Amino acid sequence: MPAVKHMKWWGWGVEGVSFHWEDKPAFPAFVSRAVGIDVTSPPAQPMSIEQLGVPAPQVSDDVRGRLTDAVGATNVAYDDHERIVHTYGKSLRDLLRLRAADLPRVPDAVVYPGSEDDVRALLELALDADLVLIPFGGGSNIAGSLHPEPDETRTVVSLDLGRMNQVLDLDEDSGLARVQAGILGPDLEEQLGRRGWTMGHYPDSFTHSTLGGWVATRSSGMQSDKYGDIAKISRGMRVVQPGGTLVVRPLPSTSTGPNTREMVLGSEGRLGVITEVTVQVHRIPENRLITAYLFPSWEAGLAAMQEISTSDAHPSVTRVSDSFETQFSLSTRKESKGFSVSSAVGNGLFKLLERRGWDLDQACLSFIGFEGGRAHVAHEKAIVGSIVKAHGGIGLGKGPAVLYDQKKFDTPYIRDFLLDRGGAADVSETAAPWSRLLPLYNAVMENVRKVYADLGVTGWVMCHLSHSEHSGACLYFTFAFNHDGVDPIAQYDRVKEALQQTFIDQGGTLSHHHAVGTEHSRWLADDISEQGVVMVQGVIDTVDAGRHLNPGKITRS
Amino acid sequence: MPAVKHMKWWGWGVEGVSFHWEDKPAFPAFVSRAVGIDVTSPPAQPMSIEQLGVPAPQVSDDVRGRLTDAVGATNVAYDDHERIVHTYGKSLRDLLRLRAADLPRVPDAVVYPGSEDDVRALLELALDADLVLIPFGGGSNIAGSLHPEPDETRTVVSLDLGRMNQVLDLDEDSGLARVQAGILGPDLEEQLGRRGWTMGHYPDSFTHSTLGGWVATRSSGMQSDKYGDIAKISRGMRVVQPGGTLVVRPLPSTSTGPNTREMVLGSEGRLGVITEVTVQVHRIPENRLITAYLFPSWEAGLAAMQEISTSDAHPSVTRVSDSFETQFSLSTRKESKGFSVSSAVGNGLFKLLERRGWDLDQACLSFIGFEGGRAHVAHEKAIVGSIVKAHGGIGLGKGPAVLYDQKKFDTPYIRDFLLDRGGAADVSETAAPWSRLLPLYNAVMENVRKVYADLGVTGWVMCHLSHSEHSGACLYFTFAFNHDGVDPIAQYDRVKEALQQTFIDQGGTLSHHHAVGTEHSRWLADDISEQGVVMVQGVIDTVDAGRHLNPGKITRS
Repeated sequence: MPAVKHMKWWGWGVEGVSFHWEDKPAFPAFVSRAVGIDVTSPPAQPMSIEQLGVPAPQVSDDVRGRLTDAVGATNVAYDDHERIVHTYGKSLRDLLRLRAADLPRVPDAVVYPGSEDDVRALLELALDADLVLIPFGGGSNIAGSLHPEPDETRTVVSLDLGRMNQVLDLDEDSGLARVQAGILGPDLEEQLGRRGWTMGHYPDSFTHSTLGGWVATRSSGMQSDKYGDIAKISRGMRVVQPGGTLVVRPLPSTSTGPNTREMVLGSEGRLGVITEVTVQVHRIPENRLITAYLFPSWEAGLAAMQEISTSDAHPSVTRVSDSFETQFSLSTRKESKGFSVSSAVGNGLFKLLERRGWDLDQACLSFIGFEGGRAHVAHEKAIVGSIVKAHGGIGLGKGPAVLYDQKKFDTPYIRDFLLDRGGAADVSETAAPWSRLLPLYNAVMENVRKVYADLGVTGWVMCHLSHSEHSGACLYFTFAFNHDGVDPIAQYDRVKEALQQTFIDQGGTLSHHHAVGTEHSRWLADDISEQGVVMVQGVIDTVDAGRHLNPGKITRS
Repeated sequence: MPAVKHMKWWGWGVEGVSFHWEDKPAFPAFVSRAVGIDVTSPPAQPMSIEQLGVPAPQVSDDVRGRLTDAVGATNVAYDDHERIVHTYGKSLRDLLRLRAADLPRVPDAVVYPGSEDDVRALLELALDADLVLIPFGGGSNIAGSLHPEPDETRTVVSLDLGRMNQVLDLDEDSGLARVQAGILGPDLEEQLGRRGWTMGHYPDSFTHSTLGGWVATRSSGMQSDKYGDIAKISRGMRVVQPGGTLVVRPLPSTSTGPNTREMVLGSEGRLGVITEVTVQVHRIPENRLITAYLFPSWEAGLAAMQEISTSDAHPSVTRVSDSFETQFSLSTRKESKGFSVSSAVGNGLFKLLERRGWDLDQACLSFIGFEGGRAHVAHEKAIVGSIVKAHGGIGLGKGPAVLYDQKKFDTPYIRDFLLDRGGAADVSETAAPWSRLLPLYNAVMENVRKVYADLGVTGWVMCHLSHSEHSGACLYFTFAFNHDGVDPIAQYDRVKEALQQTFIDQGGTLSHHHAVGTEHSRWLADDISEQGVVMVQGVIDTVDAGRHLNPGKITRS
């Protein structure tokens, strides 16, 4: 098989890497209090693929032959491991279903095209032989965008773009790179970085997601305040569609009617296979600095972020955690390094703040990033510093922020650790105007806790604000609870529904950057209105009348 | 009739206001050299509406009654003047056809809805009685987006949104204003300005165009470098469609699949009637400064703009004229005020530059705008100043820029002055990556001049760069020629084709911010690809299967 990297079939991240609590002294007590889990309890036994009882592939000999003709025998797989890796994304529901061997429909084949011509051949085959194609990037999706429809009777082929992983061209005058859609985040940054450039797109999934996947889900990165989300970064595209190839020219801006680029963004494979994206890239900045701040309350932190968003400063990162996420962050710090509860107490900071009247249980940790020339970073840092001060916050320097920066892609591993011990965890995020954020936050906290109480589970919910825009920002919620083995998916549904329904009721969107998939589709009409759904379905039906491309996602039709 | 302001029926701008050369000493010689026109020659006689022979309206008594029922008798007009005002936009073709009394199809009625309910009633009537509705804002469009199809047999109603001109709500926490779509630029800024806010959108048409029109054509403003184009500014929308009302929530960003907001943007009325837009607004900045610079060549000016676009500075305006537009600008300066050829020579600047080796015929005038706190403006101005210097440019201070700022909306009046004297003029603009701009520019200049030579006319073509983005910018061309009365529309077609085809051939777009309409639709497939046209047509057909909404625009279907 081709050398395409995949995550663990049963969880997040790289095989052999997992979360450890032993070097984090505050973590056991925190987890016990937050979700009622004893970290020393014995974890679930690892499963083997054999235990899943993976159904045999439903592929005719004719189709097998034609798949081989299209991409070569070494680029087609029918084995259980390949097919399971390509069955689900990494949502809590996906992981729980895998652990329960709940596999109503598994792709029948996995193919690895090496070129746009290969993709075209595969799509022609799908049209001719009435197959379903599901484009697959890194498989990190948590919105239910990747699994076949449970009642699909046609042969389902997962189309893994992982071999198409090269930066093809770099126009240094324009800061535009032409890149194959199957490239993973680290490979993209490595190929650009060699020449002194960066795309600056760092979603939480960065290490395990692809450019094509980012486009297909409208991804945002941690530095999107400066670099823009993927909708801004993606300038040109090539998308293989049943009727031909959609070509979007890499233009800075254009007035050519309803924007086809913005139709492909978020299309989750339904409008064709994205083979190539021309992205906006930047020379690696002279200086890159992330500074930590601490606010006396969530309200103060939000108000500061809002003021920064309309100030003359344009930081690359704006992020503030609520007090609950702050407590979580402090609990995961290693004893010996940087900012931690004990070291901070040791150096007297927390005692000083208490003397100043802070309620430390309410303290909120914040990270702000700055990039550019030295004078520019100093200029922006001064603006931000005075805003932070005006809202009662204090600077903590670079120490904690360096740690944040190093560990930012590790958090998803904790979920598998909890799952092994009877805990369920996932995330839901939204965006709303500034005026709506605090009411929305308060309603979410109340409604999720009410569900925990109804279910009789010990649960935790925490939040951070990120991705500040002039008119609003993203609120990113993480929730975890002890499901005690009692139908965890039903419990998850209750918690997830409380989050999503509150987003909608409070003027937020169903997702800021995780997509619709099947997980959020029941709220789509509430968010974009019935006519919005009609328009989206109209584009899908126009491009793919035969429903060959990832059917059922976004609109459920 | 309602008190809705309109432009002259026969030309640009306010009745009674026109261009005068008498106070511009350099203008006569310039016009004589550039387009071979003697400004002292007697102008064409003004036309009267009666000379047009406007065809009678084709409206049944039943429809007349129902239009009255929908909006009231005082808000429906059938007279020639109202109908002529609503027949065309203000392209050169539009004005030449009016002057030739070429009126294949004139709207049969003009209606002025006062509310979204009125619009809904009118659309229901259009569906029921098989009428055509053409939404109308300020009528400044130059892409052929407003006229009825010449062979339209159904009753055509121009739907003028001019009564819907209020800022309905201002969310100061979020910087979001809910505004009726029919509001004109000055009314919008006046209503916001009273409360200390600005939207910052200043297209050339500002004084005579509306919010709904900007959205429907993907407008850009002079300060779009800071405030964004209308696609960025427009966060929420309400659009009355045949199947119901599309509601776009005012979100900072969202991941809800193919973006319906970006479908409405540029839709030219084909996806419904935009009744309300929630726009991003800003507190009026403490300081606003436009500074002028002079570059020794177009190449130097372009290179400086490119470097500024990737620097740490984010000016509100970036603009540089080529040497031809610089000469035009100098020719229109009034003797007594500010920077002019003679005063500049007088103060020795030009002599100094000649001693430094400048070829003054190659000099290019530039304007850069800065906004924000005093320290911020100083910081950005310092960055820009050093980039300008590195490219051989010099600062001219605020004087010329103040004049530019005051006169920026007056240029379109010159076209009517030329038309009265046998001259034809219009504009075409594009956008392309930085690496393509100079080849595109050179090819346009060569190809347009070749057309002038083929036609045997004296002609002029000039250009400026504006709207800098990280990956490219807009090039805005103005052309004028002496048509000598020989089929000016056929001559215009040759010139226009040379411009548009060169844009496409050189990697540019058919329009950066003027829309597709009918004027640019033949290049649509070349720009957005055949599949792009299929997708756009798919959305249109989904929303308006009966072709009741401004049919024929964008896709010609």
